[in-house]
Amino acid sequence: MKIRFLAAAAVTLVAASAQAQFAKVDDAVKYRQSALFVMAQHFGRVAAMANGRVPYDAAVATQNAELVAEMSRLPWQGFGPGTDKPGIPTRAKPEVWTEDGKFRAAADQLQLETSKLVAAAKTSNVDNLKQAFQATAAACKNCHDHFRKD
Amino acid sequence: MKIRFLAAAAVTLVAASAQAQFAKVDDAVKYRQSALFVMAQHFGRVAAMANGRVPYDAAVATQNAELVAEMSRLPWQGFGPGTDKPGIPTRAKPEVWTEDGKFRAAADQLQLETSKLVAAAKTSNVDNLKQAFQATAAACKNCHDHFRKD
Repeated sequence: MKIRFLAAAAVTLVAASAQAQFAKVDDAVKYRQSALFVMAQHFGRVAAMANGRVPYDAAVATQNAELVAEMSRLPWQGFGPGTDKPGIPTRAKPEVWTEDGKFRAAADQLQLETSKLVAAAKTSNVDNLKQAFQATAAACKNCHDHFRKD
Repeated sequence: MKIRFLAAAAVTLVAASAQAQFAKVDDAVKYRQSALFVMAQHFGRVAAMANGRVPYDAAVATQNAELVAEMSRLPWQGFGPGTDKPGIPTRAKPEVWTEDGKFRAAADQLQLETSKLVAAAKTSNVDNLKQAFQATAAACKNCHDHFRKD
């Protein structure tokens, strides 16, 4: 009983800490979805250059890559304890919370790749941009495959 | 007729330019709403310090103020021509498009105040933070009063 009580108290503490960042659970969910959506829009603009749909412009690519990198640091705080069953639709799988270490590693990998994307965007070499774009896209896909419903 | 044709052509061109940034109108709306939501969350954390609900910490205040400033530059591209009647709910009033100059001025004012908020957050003087917080909050309110439905 004592162990169960302590475990429950620990969960409450963690939840309280997560809650301190957000007024309510749905705000945490809306926050992570918003950050990911803004990130995806700017990543799409980098993609258009990496794929040759629009001409490569190092300044524009860098501006967008920097926003991708900035946004890639944000969503994770919105996946705190107690945010797995919100009142608004979510595509997050239960594995986000049951495989926490793997999820954190995937999030870290994305942030590593987006920082490389910024460096590549600055080089004025479209092949560098393509390579970093593909590595970043692979980090997105890896996380979606494991942690997001289709 | 010629004038009407030219005016229609101009609108099409502007719409095409706005569309180039977003795959569809609803993406533009979701983008502006997402950027504003992320901004509001980080502004709320600055507010908590400015209002004394949590202890003032210059590093944390600066981190949040920088995100507020960064996000305050984004939403406006999501209010392009043709984004006034989307397929998803929006609180944007028609005045966003009919009073374009006034709307742009309000957006510029917000960005000016958020850059001052960053400077104030860094000073380690909570009175500076309070003052800049109030000026930023006034810029938010001014825009909401004129351009957002309750």
